[in-house]
Amino acid sequence: MSYLKNILVLFTLLATPFMALASNTEAKHLEDSSFRILDIIAKKRDNIELTQKEINYFVQEYSKGNIVDYQASSFLMATFINGMSADEISFLTDSMIHSGSVMKFDDIKEPIVDKHSTGGVGDKTSLILAPICASLGLKVPMISGRGLGHTGGTLDKLESIPGFKVDQDFDSYKRLVKDVGVCIIGQTKDIAPADKKIYALRDVSGSVESIPLIASSIMSKKMAEGLDVLVMDVKTGKGAFIKEYDKSLKLAQTMLNIGKKLNTKVIAVVSDMNQPLGMCVGNSLEIIESAQILKGDCLPAQEDLQTLSFKLAAQMLIATNKAFDEQDAMDKISKVIEDGSAFEKFKQMVEAQGGNPKSLDDYSLFPAANYKYILKAENSGYIKTLDALKIAKGSSILGGSRQTIDDTIDFSVGTIIYKKIGDFVQIGDALLEIHYNDKNKLKNALSFFEDAYRFDNSEVTKPILIKEILK
Amino acid sequence: MSYLKNILVLFTLLATPFMALASNTEAKHLEDSSFRILDIIAKKRDNIELTQKEINYFVQEYSKGNIVDYQASSFLMATFINGMSADEISFLTDSMIHSGSVMKFDDIKEPIVDKHSTGGVGDKTSLILAPICASLGLKVPMISGRGLGHTGGTLDKLESIPGFKVDQDFDSYKRLVKDVGVCIIGQTKDIAPADKKIYALRDVSGSVESIPLIASSIMSKKMAEGLDVLVMDVKTGKGAFIKEYDKSLKLAQTMLNIGKKLNTKVIAVVSDMNQPLGMCVGNSLEIIESAQILKGDCLPAQEDLQTLSFKLAAQMLIATNKAFDEQDAMDKISKVIEDGSAFEKFKQMVEAQGGNPKSLDDYSLFPAANYKYILKAENSGYIKTLDALKIAKGSSILGGSRQTIDDTIDFSVGTIIYKKIGDFVQIGDALLEIHYNDKNKLKNALSFFEDAYRFDNSEVTKPILIKEILK
Repeated sequence: MSYLKNILVLFTLLATPFMALASNTEAKHLEDSSFRILDIIAKKRDNIELTQKEINYFVQEYSKGNIVDYQASSFLMATFINGMSADEISFLTDSMIHSGSVMKFDDIKEPIVDKHSTGGVGDKTSLILAPICASLGLKVPMISGRGLGHTGGTLDKLESIPGFKVDQDFDSYKRLVKDVGVCIIGQTKDIAPADKKIYALRDVSGSVESIPLIASSIMSKKMAEGLDVLVMDVKTGKGAFIKEYDKSLKLAQTMLNIGKKLNTKVIAVVSDMNQPLGMCVGNSLEIIESAQILKGDCLPAQEDLQTLSFKLAAQMLIATNKAFDEQDAMDKISKVIEDGSAFEKFKQMVEAQGGNPKSLDDYSLFPAANYKYILKAENSGYIKTLDALKIAKGSSILGGSRQTIDDTIDFSVGTIIYKKIGDFVQIGDALLEIHYNDKNKLKNALSFFEDAYRFDNSEVTKPILIKEILK
Repeated sequence: MSYLKNILVLFTLLATPFMALASNTEAKHLEDSSFRILDIIAKKRDNIELTQKEINYFVQEYSKGNIVDYQASSFLMATFINGMSADEISFLTDSMIHSGSVMKFDDIKEPIVDKHSTGGVGDKTSLILAPICASLGLKVPMISGRGLGHTGGTLDKLESIPGFKVDQDFDSYKRLVKDVGVCIIGQTKDIAPADKKIYALRDVSGSVESIPLIASSIMSKKMAEGLDVLVMDVKTGKGAFIKEYDKSLKLAQTMLNIGKKLNTKVIAVVSDMNQPLGMCVGNSLEIIESAQILKGDCLPAQEDLQTLSFKLAAQMLIATNKAFDEQDAMDKISKVIEDGSAFEKFKQMVEAQGGNPKSLDDYSLFPAANYKYILKAENSGYIKTLDALKIAKGSSILGGSRQTIDDTIDFSVGTIIYKKIGDFVQIGDALLEIHYNDKNKLKNALSFFEDAYRFDNSEVTKPILIKEILK
């Protein structure tokens, strides 16, 4: 078969002889291996299921630099278009996990849990649920991300806390997980390096938005944390990475399948991301909002944030047998909120990672913007749309996130959202309180903020927050 | 839309932050252009038809090195899987033609014609029809190919003629086309350089066997010759690059469509390539066989070669109004064979390109092999299969073609085929006369030669040579 294929290729070479000369000197065939990358590319291209060994070969040899970028990108594009079977996806995930270190918390008896979100605007659920879970006896070794472009990442938000350090060496990270119960750090080089290399290539060669590739990328990094339970928050809607509901559901199901095949308990919550979560978008503002929720203070516009954070935490408690059902979990969560132990855990975490825990009580210790601008309603009516992407873009223009990797973030800027989808507003009602430091930036950002709102004369129902829980 | 897409990408980056940092430093976006390669890749990936400007952008910028290989290979894989519309194929061909020089034979009034084959075994039709057409007043500026691996190319065959030079500078090439009527040279750097670069990448990234890409690659090189008429010989069957008949037909139709859209008359002949064409496979042997046909000597086992060569030439004569129908064309061809003017033209061409024309009368001037081995039938019966690929492989092992680009070719080796599909043989009848210089090589090659033949007790019909002519 392979001989025949060679001949077929050679016939084309006949037709294009000089090209053949040029190309063959470039070809990287690993003659000493039992696999050839061109055969693997051709199989995926022709929609034939790959074996575990073939997928391992691709991941390992690409990591080592034995498969060149133009072959890997070609393979990834074929994978994008033709998809992958459940087996192939789990093989890919497994192979990427084992391209680096897999955490072991041997001296910890308590369940190791984490949550991951596919990304949203105003999403600070991690900052709320991690202390809750830690205060209820779970261990949360959270490896989190930075933002780029229009939105902020959990690490950037945490760095708005004076003194907070997201870079911890491996030993202190493990010690903090054990002693405090939660530690939030940045990605390390040791975690799934193959995924890092593959993702970077997908990003610049057009194969990002593929469910098998997204699912295996996320899962490889999270499962390398050595988790017992992973709760996935799959965002859906206009402000989500995957807008269409059926695709979001498919991503959730795909990650669940990976968990099943690789023996890790995964729960996937599909949640609405048409409007920002909670009231705050901006780094300092989001830490302050998280502290408020942990203190038990919750305004009507924050109910979605509180509900989602608690429900995600509840899933972790149920899956680890720390609660026997959702009601029991919610009761336990209410208790650690009411008795202050969840908030106390947040402060412990902040202090353990070098941050000033007093800032969580005295918000004036956070970087604050010099100016505030109130965006008022020019129409009356029900709010039909509060476009999360436009709010994110506006905040980004104010300086709240990086446009390029060299940018510094202005932690103080952002916006407080007073009115959300379904709210009725009169002309002149405050919609947004925009925190800014630069009048020109405000000018550029304003059209995005204004454009985020759409009104309707008829009543608008609030979006259903949690659309599906898959276990 | 593009803004939205950027945000979507950024959301994934949120989920995989360090990768984003790594990848964005690699990204090559041409901010000063109205196109972005990632948008073009995404369109093709999502099966949306590309515009002429987008395809031009890809071809030009990839040629210039502004689009990196891993982006181009990703685009080509998406093209492989999703295909191209007739418009897209013609835009791609046109763009590759104009990436280099387009020949102009302004001082030639006679029609400029050429033939191209998708590649076969024992296919020396070019060497027969080019002198015929030139002797009948057509001009044939043939840019031909070298072989690699299992088969020989027209250029290699010509170089077995003592003294023959396939490298001619542009001026002498044009002069020879004008004065002699035919000149056969190798590919130059100036002809469709974008195709050369794209083909080389396809070859090492798994996107060779795509009809739109094959058709545009062939057509861009041939149409840069500034032709009035191109006759395509599309091979089909076990020994062809494209084995399946429906695909061969599709390739033929695709090249016809390109011709129509780019205003060049194209005729596509779909011909059988299950067994070698004619009796000889091997460089010297094939030149000698061509000379024999041009002299009017034709053995039964050579009838397919003679017929195909003459019919291809006839198509050229009809398309250029040198003949009013096929009968008229065949009469004219018979005449130049019988009066010796076609053979004389071949000798003129050989002499004009530095070769010794006496060799075409005195075959002892060709490199000859030291040994001959007669492969005899071990069964009696009708020949059911004479596998062209295995004959090619056997000849290649003898040294008749290059395994790598550094190999030198042994022009003298090869095989003479006595029995072809449909022939009845008795035990002991000679099937092949194998010309060789190295006994070890013969040993290795023999199993391929033996394996090429399959017998049947029932009568076997000879394959239909010309399956379809598309105009």
